[in-house]
Amino acid sequence: MSKVIRARDLGLAFPGTPGKHNALTDVPGVLVGFATISEGEGPLVVGQGPIRTGVTAILPAGRGGEMVPVWAGFHALNGNGEMTGTHWIHDAGYLVGPICITNTHSVGMVHHAATKWMIRTYSAFHEHHVWAMPVVAETYDGLLNDINGQHVRESHVFTALDTAGDGPIAEGNVGGGTGMICYEFKGGTGTSSRRVAIDGINYTVGALVQANHGVREWLTILGVPVGRHLAADRLSMTEQGSIIVIVATDIPLLANQLTRLAKRAAIGIGRHGTPGGNNSGDIFLAFSTANRGPLHQFAPSPLTLRCINDERLDNVYLACVEAIEEAVINALVAAKDTPTLRPPGKVCRAIEHDRLVEVMRAYNRCA
Amino acid sequence: MSKVIRARDLGLAFPGTPGKHNALTDVPGVLVGFATISEGEGPLVVGQGPIRTGVTAILPAGRGGEMVPVWAGFHALNGNGEMTGTHWIHDAGYLVGPICITNTHSVGMVHHAATKWMIRTYSAFHEHHVWAMPVVAETYDGLLNDINGQHVRESHVFTALDTAGDGPIAEGNVGGGTGMICYEFKGGTGTSSRRVAIDGINYTVGALVQANHGVREWLTILGVPVGRHLAADRLSMTEQGSIIVIVATDIPLLANQLTRLAKRAAIGIGRHGTPGGNNSGDIFLAFSTANRGPLHQFAPSPLTLRCINDERLDNVYLACVEAIEEAVINALVAAKDTPTLRPPGKVCRAIEHDRLVEVMRAYNRCA
Amino acid sequence: MSKVIRARDLGLAFPGTPGKHNALTDVPGVLVGFATISEGEGPLVVGQGPIRTGVTAILPAGRGGEMVPVWAGFHALNGNGEMTGTHWIHDAGYLVGPICITNTHSVGMVHHAATKWMIRTYSAFHEHHVWAMPVVAETYDGLLNDINGQHVRESHVFTALDTAGDGPIAEGNVGGGTGMICYEFKGGTGTSSRRVAIDGINYTVGALVQANHGVREWLTILGVPVGRHLAADRLSMTEQGSIIVIVATDIPLLANQLTRLAKRAAIGIGRHGTPGGNNSGDIFLAFSTANRGPLHQFAPSPLTLRCINDERLDNVYLACVEAIEEAVINALVAAKDTPTLRPPGKVCRAIEHDRLVEVMRAYNRCA
Amino acid sequence: MSKVIRARDLGLAFPGTPGKHNALTDVPGVLVGFATISEGEGPLVVGQGPIRTGVTAILPAGRGGEMVPVWAGFHALNGNGEMTGTHWIHDAGYLVGPICITNTHSVGMVHHAATKWMIRTYSAFHEHHVWAMPVVAETYDGLLNDINGQHVRESHVFTALDTAGDGPIAEGNVGGGTGMICYEFKGGTGTSSRRVAIDGINYTVGALVQANHGVREWLTILGVPVGRHLAADRLSMTEQGSIIVIVATDIPLLANQLTRLAKRAAIGIGRHGTPGGNNSGDIFLAFSTANRGPLHQFAPSPLTLRCINDERLDNVYLACVEAIEEAVINALVAAKDTPTLRPPGKVCRAIEHDRLVEVMRAYNRCA
Repeated sequence: MSKVIRARDLGLAFPGTPGKHNALTDVPGVLVGFATISEGEGPLVVGQGPIRTGVTAILPAGRGGEMVPVWAGFHALNGNGEMTGTHWIHDAGYLVGPICITNTHSVGMVHHAATKWMIRTYSAFHEHHVWAMPVVAETYDGLLNDINGQHVRESHVFTALDTAGDGPIAEGNVGGGTGMICYEFKGGTGTSSRRVAIDGINYTVGALVQANHGVREWLTILGVPVGRHLAADRLSMTEQGSIIVIVATDIPLLANQLTRLAKRAAIGIGRHGTPGGNNSGDIFLAFSTANRGPLHQFAPSPLTLRCINDERLDNVYLACVEAIEEAVINALVAAKDTPTLRPPGKVCRAIEHDRLVEVMRAYNRCA
Repeated sequence: MSKVIRARDLGLAFPGTPGKHNALTDVPGVLVGFATISEGEGPLVVGQGPIRTGVTAILPAGRGGEMVPVWAGFHALNGNGEMTGTHWIHDAGYLVGPICITNTHSVGMVHHAATKWMIRTYSAFHEHHVWAMPVVAETYDGLLNDINGQHVRESHVFTALDTAGDGPIAEGNVGGGTGMICYEFKGGTGTSSRRVAIDGINYTVGALVQANHGVREWLTILGVPVGRHLAADRLSMTEQGSIIVIVATDIPLLANQLTRLAKRAAIGIGRHGTPGGNNSGDIFLAFSTANRGPLHQFAPSPLTLRCINDERLDNVYLACVEAIEEAVINALVAAKDTPTLRPPGKVCRAIEHDRLVEVMRAYNRCA
Repeated sequence: MSKVIRARDLGLAFPGTPGKHNALTDVPGVLVGFATISEGEGPLVVGQGPIRTGVTAILPAGRGGEMVPVWAGFHALNGNGEMTGTHWIHDAGYLVGPICITNTHSVGMVHHAATKWMIRTYSAFHEHHVWAMPVVAETYDGLLNDINGQHVRESHVFTALDTAGDGPIAEGNVGGGTGMICYEFKGGTGTSSRRVAIDGINYTVGALVQANHGVREWLTILGVPVGRHLAADRLSMTEQGSIIVIVATDIPLLANQLTRLAKRAAIGIGRHGTPGGNNSGDIFLAFSTANRGPLHQFAPSPLTLRCINDERLDNVYLACVEAIEEAVINALVAAKDTPTLRPPGKVCRAIEHDRLVEVMRAYNRCA
Repeated sequence: MSKVIRARDLGLAFPGTPGKHNALTDVPGVLVGFATISEGEGPLVVGQGPIRTGVTAILPAGRGGEMVPVWAGFHALNGNGEMTGTHWIHDAGYLVGPICITNTHSVGMVHHAATKWMIRTYSAFHEHHVWAMPVVAETYDGLLNDINGQHVRESHVFTALDTAGDGPIAEGNVGGGTGMICYEFKGGTGTSSRRVAIDGINYTVGALVQANHGVREWLTILGVPVGRHLAADRLSMTEQGSIIVIVATDIPLLANQLTRLAKRAAIGIGRHGTPGGNNSGDIFLAFSTANRGPLHQFAPSPLTLRCINDERLDNVYLACVEAIEEAVINALVAAKDTPTLRPPGKVCRAIEHDRLVEVMRAYNRCA
């Protein structure tokens, strides 16, 4: 297998210091898994394919016998999309269970299967009155995938959840990102991370994106108007996509601090030129793995929580913005050409590495 | 078949003037359907039942060949529950497609099937890039239903959607409300409506609730502390339930006016004594059937919209509060005794009509 | 001086157990002061009076040489009014400095003077870059006061702040509540409190309202439709008023828990019949005196915070609702007749104690 | 008088097409005025100066005998600041009266005077029960101005309001922006506009900023890391500033569309490198001059409103982002060196035009 090329390997000079794998999984305990469904060729026959879709699963609190709430916050720059589970995050500031990302028309099946997986996995469901409200988000892959065939099945969700692990994360055409388009290049899954020292302790902020947004002419990378230079093979789109951003950190942050962190994702994705299109579901979730304990039903009262002083937040925000900026470009760089279904017969091209480097160099923004 | 007894038939003097059926369906074009699943007896065997659950389906814009957005707003008094589709309602102020209510662990299947139903029903899914983001809400029926068995299937959802009609609405143990508990009495589905004249035109405000909230001692009806007097057969609960409120009207209201209307549901449910419990998902949706047109993708620009002057809102708010107040009591009055599964061997009693009337009379609040 | 009569003294059977003074000041460390301006008689001459207005000042963290943030949350049931300082409460979850309530057109002067008072009082303003963002809220007293004369001056604000103390709180026509109207009776300032035991510790939840809202026919007290029975001396109003609710507690609650507490005020005021009128500024603030420390600029990092388990919140919510319910009626019971300026020549009547008791007894809701 | 140099005059290649004056006032009917207070030299003596502050006034609906609501929306990226009047904008979607921007400790006086000005200007205050809730926003100028002296007086506010006009707008050290610092350069007031054709009609989106935010090393202009190259004369700050953004347009947009527009300002300011610092009040307001009519109290019912189809929003969002991007740089380019008070004896330098151009050229981003 050839070495994986990521944006940094092309010499793109992203700011900041990434973690070991430059991935969401650099946050200890955060696990990521995929089910990638790529079946069939030829023209679209609804219900039969071709299928280019999947499921991305994130276990924010690792594996273990019991459900563990993690503190969380979210923000929608443009809510033309779905992310379930957010009413409780808004009010109580935590989520319990997996976070999954898929295509728009598979939200229901993924929610159903994630709920089933939780019931199977956690004994509390059988001994107490507890309930599952998993986070399931989506972006639309109907140009490259038979989305109306609703091909994601329970077993795919279980695969993504059961194979979730730490270490390097596959990018591009994988998991929920399999059929995604980003700035009219082939998009998909991307990730990155940043190290931040706060109060003398080293922490990590990681981001994972399912990038399906943007129009070519908007595309800017590290300030360079790449989209104007790489104008070939456009799909003649208006904005129809979306981007889901998941931010994880081990910094002790309270719910309202995490909501504020999630808001910064607007700046992170804005660095590539999008103003947040009307048909885009630009929805962001941030969670912290710190301050973990049992479900509230089984926890003591009062609780004792730690959080960093708000005065330390600026570097956390910057790390978040930078990790998101790089994660989107990692998705582009890793993606592979994929034929379009609607309209049929075209190809959604991956960005060409050589051409990208050439443009960046013309602006003195590449090593 | 015996005549259906509703709260008003007992002489309870609710304020305001209801519409023809005193139901959500008094709003022209709003259709409601149910799938009620009641199977099995005896002790709980997860996956085998007994099953006491279902699906409630609301078609806000009636039937027809094309998708029609309806303007909408929502509010969560306490977000410990799920209502999908709200990010876009928050931002763009409309929803497209059905509204379904079910049990907590069937949200996924109902979302999946509602999406499938939309794909089948609307040709736009096959000719254009459109996407489904149905509204699916829930309350928890794990005391009376094998909720962890996830017994709602696609076919149940189709039944609720395909049988949705106008006219009188069944209440109590029906649809999504089949296994619900309210103030430790048997709860479930309830509805009511109010007529409001605005600018010389007669309009209707309707409410439908899936009532699964409240602790007995809190229960107040028309100001009478009923819960303190009818203290028998309690289930020894702390608040674990939820209430979903759907408000419909034909009054021309913009999205922000509908959001404000949805906020008033907190007052409507507060009239029975609940302060909005921590474990309750008290989530409210309001929509208007006015100002309808095609999906934005197929609509002209600019749009021309009508809305009543904000100065007319007070009577609309009052109608909303009153319809919700009565809908919850209608759910209680219509409900039927149901055995409990967890703990086994008890019975969740419906409120006794005679006893209720007796208490109300002692406070001069019943005809 | 005659004994002060409060709602409870009339035999009204409010639920729950009040604190020592049945007042906001039952929360240790919370101080309340007033400046009441009542000058002039006769017809309105803008700029000359008559003046019936004032300032209510709350010091949430007592007196002391340094600024102390208190954790806080807010909610607007209907935002037709002003409460400054809320953007930071929304994001960071705390406020620093006094909370003042006045009339609508004196918000600026009160904000100016409260800022000046903070600069004078706290040395940090002269040694560091700190800034004042006081909370100033208002309701409209233009029917009884020459509001367009903007008669509140710096000195009034200093008086309210400098005389703020603990112990019993004056009610009715005092402070910011001097010229207020409530359910077309004379309204104004009211307060109440509740004791709550949580985790074996006795805490207090207190409420202070500036009640200026409601239409007579809506008025319900303890479930009794008082407004329909006491229909004389109406002011022929549509809803034009507002209500500000300040909730204080010594229970350790985080910012998001306090936001949730503030939401419950909608239910508290809803108990008297208002659906939250369009022209009403129904804005609610909740703060906790627990978890206090220095300003973030001078605080350590990380912070350690305590909060009660969410599972304990229901009784806190109930205490909040009950304290607000009683505070509004305390405002009505304490108020005194006041002549109207616009239209001139009428009198805004205080509710008659005897008549109120008579109606309550007819419904078996009074001792 | 020498020609005014703006960012575009330096050859900076901002995208998009500005309006006639490249200013907020390109939106017909929008008037802008300033009161600039620059008095005293030497060391800080609280209460005596030096004074470097002022007031910026925006009349969103021009002059005229009657109050006119304009539809509006707002967003706080980071709410560490004040913008009054937003509760009603949140709920009802409009504002009435002027928008003023000043320093943090003059919010009260400006609110007081803007209210007085409204009472004097609009006869409705004397004939009806109407109330003033002006929008007053602020940023902190305590490094360059005797902010604790609260030197803004009523007369300054009246000057800004009474001199508000159309045509070109002064930038840099003027009005509320007089004492502001931006990316550790001298900042202040800046403006820009964009033309947008929608549905065949030419519209304008304008932005005005009071720019007081940012740390030098973050500064990026058109993608070029300017702050790293122009590292001299830093003020050794952590982020302590803020930015207020006012967006105006004549495009017919409803309140929820304007809220969405205001959210895009996060991307606009993010283009210069800020992640939205913790101590920054990054608060954004957007309003539309379309769909104007009388106050609701005096308006008919129902109202008829026009709005562009959401499908047209992407170019509006882009215009908004681009106008804000340029407005901030215009503030930097127009600003003048100003001595610091705290710490004393330094100078807050304006960005040097020649050096800026030199850096931009090295990255191929300047003509």
